[in-house]
Amino acid sequence: MSDKVPGEQLRRFMTDAFAAVDIPKEDAARIAGLMSRADESGADGHGIFRLPQYIRRIKAGAVNVRPTIRVERESAATALIDGDNGMGHLVMSMATETAIAKAKTAGVAWVGARMSNHAGPASLYASMPIEHGLIGIYMAVGNANHLPPWGGIDMLLSTNPIAIGVPAHEEQAVVLDMATTVAAYGKVKTKAQRGEMMPEGWMIDREGKPLLDPKRAEEGFLLPIGGYKGYGLALMFGLLAGTLNGAAMGRDVIDFNNDDTSVTNTGHCIVVVDPAAFGDPAQFRRNVDTVVRDLRASRRLPGVERIWLPGEQSAIKRAERGRDGVPVPPALKATLAKVAAELNIAPLAA
Amino acid sequence: MSDKVPGEQLRRFMTDAFAAVDIPKEDAARIAGLMSRADESGADGHGIFRLPQYIRRIKAGAVNVRPTIRVERESAATALIDGDNGMGHLVMSMATETAIAKAKTAGVAWVGARMSNHAGPASLYASMPIEHGLIGIYMAVGNANHLPPWGGIDMLLSTNPIAIGVPAHEEQAVVLDMATTVAAYGKVKTKAQRGEMMPEGWMIDREGKPLLDPKRAEEGFLLPIGGYKGYGLALMFGLLAGTLNGAAMGRDVIDFNNDDTSVTNTGHCIVVVDPAAFGDPAQFRRNVDTVVRDLRASRRLPGVERIWLPGEQSAIKRAERGRDGVPVPPALKATLAKVAAELNIAPLAA
Repeated sequence: MSDKVPGEQLRRFMTDAFAAVDIPKEDAARIAGLMSRADESGADGHGIFRLPQYIRRIKAGAVNVRPTIRVERESAATALIDGDNGMGHLVMSMATETAIAKAKTAGVAWVGARMSNHAGPASLYASMPIEHGLIGIYMAVGNANHLPPWGGIDMLLSTNPIAIGVPAHEEQAVVLDMATTVAAYGKVKTKAQRGEMMPEGWMIDREGKPLLDPKRAEEGFLLPIGGYKGYGLALMFGLLAGTLNGAAMGRDVIDFNNDDTSVTNTGHCIVVVDPAAFGDPAQFRRNVDTVVRDLRASRRLPGVERIWLPGEQSAIKRAERGRDGVPVPPALKATLAKVAAELNIAPLAA
Repeated sequence: MSDKVPGEQLRRFMTDAFAAVDIPKEDAARIAGLMSRADESGADGHGIFRLPQYIRRIKAGAVNVRPTIRVERESAATALIDGDNGMGHLVMSMATETAIAKAKTAGVAWVGARMSNHAGPASLYASMPIEHGLIGIYMAVGNANHLPPWGGIDMLLSTNPIAIGVPAHEEQAVVLDMATTVAAYGKVKTKAQRGEMMPEGWMIDREGKPLLDPKRAEEGFLLPIGGYKGYGLALMFGLLAGTLNGAAMGRDVIDFNNDDTSVTNTGHCIVVVDPAAFGDPAQFRRNVDTVVRDLRASRRLPGVERIWLPGEQSAIKRAERGRDGVPVPPALKATLAKVAAELNIAPLAA
């Protein structure tokens, strides 16, 4: 049974942890806020679960704790951000704020980032423009290659995710957040950590046979969605989020799960679109409501209880976990206790 | 055995056909050029195969043969095109040219279109920016709903496709073109037309059982790639290409395969990105080459002869069919002979 920890406590603990490794307090609080939002939204592989790894890499000198994150190039509708090897959450917060500001005047903005790091779930950044009535599209190069080209066995691609957030009027915003593989590697790690087996279809081994034990994940690779289509999406998102920005892509991507010292040079991009550039924005949001309601009202296949919209389950989880706290499994709690002892900070309290 | 017809003859025939239904000669030639490019690239469901349907809908008054395609709204980096119910090939050619021009100055451009029609394969428009050293991203709302929301049975979504084209240096450009369903509906139609069965996984019926006979396609629906992920992509691409532009989406999409008289109000969008806004464009293209070569050189699963890059098979087909002509199956040839007789134009010659 997992203890439930209030979000406020997660934020306090993570802020203390990052501050203890010399990240300025304000930055530490910002990263902790985004990570706890990931936890509260149900992105269990992207919140406090990642803290021990982040701290390990910071202590090993692989991440710059006091970066000068700056706009390296820009035009009215574009920017390239040099993250100076800072935490990805900080780099992508700045990139997204930059894109929001530019989209408000230019109608659309495309902001890329290089020399960044793992930034948590894609939906965090695709959701930020929604509060401004804007659409967000986020792509990233993952921080470990678990995917070969279709038909191949050399792991040259990551699970390069996309998230797309679209504001609605009375309905919840529609927010899709997906890896281009059937399962994200974070989910494999979560399964391993919980001692559970994976369903068939998540991974295969180098002979092409199903791989079910997440503890043997190193012996195989993830399967892309739709076969060659998911391979194509992972490749294209990688070219757009990585190669275009001069960030790592393909064989240059290091495995940050097994390498605590190398700089990742993570690439991401965020595209923000202002619906007002294409028509009446209030009418657009009402039309999104109509689509959402029509889909939800669809007749269902036998045995299906409810039609879900992208982002709807996360929104429900945010409400639940905001009220009841975030479940932290015992194994993770033990690891976090060690982190607390090492950093000499107050332990996580339930 | 299919006769092979030279591309030049396809273009002549289709130009004559469109001119015969009162499309101005220059527009007719432009549409025919794009359709024959689709045929030569192997997009068999999107070239001359569609001609009888296009002609039927034009004759029924559902498509405006002399549209005033115009920019309805614009900013430095965006535009909304009103297609005035013209042929989609014309609307999207203009939209893409507009986006290319804007991206050259703004770094990125997002151009949406409403009141358009079916425009052929997505790759046509995502490829146009490549000749200018630019990246193209195209999305569209399909012209018939064959996809329910995940878990549902009401067909409220189309196979909304995406194409992404990225220029390379010495290598072929990388061009992904995919429907968000396992199979595009055009492929189902091609199977039906050839009298072949579909593989399991393309379609299911309203009980959730596999549907294999393409002649029974009306009794079921297409399956999205990666289950709920493909459903999510189809929805988001539809919101971006349709709803955002005030074009049809969801229940407003008419089935243009079974309705010759209703206006489709098809929506598309094209995003063009200038690599020069993010770094040295020549270096970017060389880096794309490196990724392409690394993927191609991957070791392979047992039984796999070659690793393909997105767009590579189409490029090979274009070379082959440019040299040898485009195979036109006997049933299609017979239909085209009827079209020729009705329109009083010279028949298609092998």
